[in-house]
Amino acid sequence: MNFIAEIVIMPLKELLDPQGKAVEHSLQKMSFKEVDDVRIGKHITLKIAANSKEIAQAKVEEACKKLLANPIMEGYRYELKEA
Amino acid sequence: MNFIAEIVIMPLKELLDPQGKAVEHSLQKMSFKEVDDVRIGKHITLKIAANSKEIAQAKVEEACKKLLANPIMEGYRYELKEA
Repeated sequence: MNFIAEIVIMPLKELLDPQGKAVEHSLQKMSFKEVDDVRIGKHITLKIAANSKEIAQAKVEEACKKLLANPIMEGYRYELKEA
Repeated sequence: MNFIAEIVIMPLKELLDPQGKAVEHSLQKMSFKEVDDVRIGKHITLKIAANSKEIAQAKVEEACKKLLANPIMEGYRYELKEA
């Protein structure tokens, strides 16, 4: 079975997000004064072949831990659906 | 009222995504051979103050068009919920 994973990797809440701050300032200068708390992370989609959703989930979890997210600075969450 | 927008900006399907390809190759070398079609985009969250959800939506749409997404290379989608 094939699954599609949608993975969201965001800077941890406790940390400053310089990219988000830069975009926030740009937006506020551009007549978007009502915008606040901009945070920018990564959105990753991938296809994964596995015999069950549980196996696919374990693989995605491992991929996040080993390569996709930096646990010192980032948190991750994901959703899996059948392709 | 305050709203939280979750904005997803992804490279268009028609375009090659070099960052996604690089990560795909790394994963495949790291015992994730079952992974395919990796694509990497941006995930942006922001807070927006507006009198109604419609106004907030129009503002987020405008921000995506004017600053956040590059329409030549990227597509965007978003969800708004009350904070």
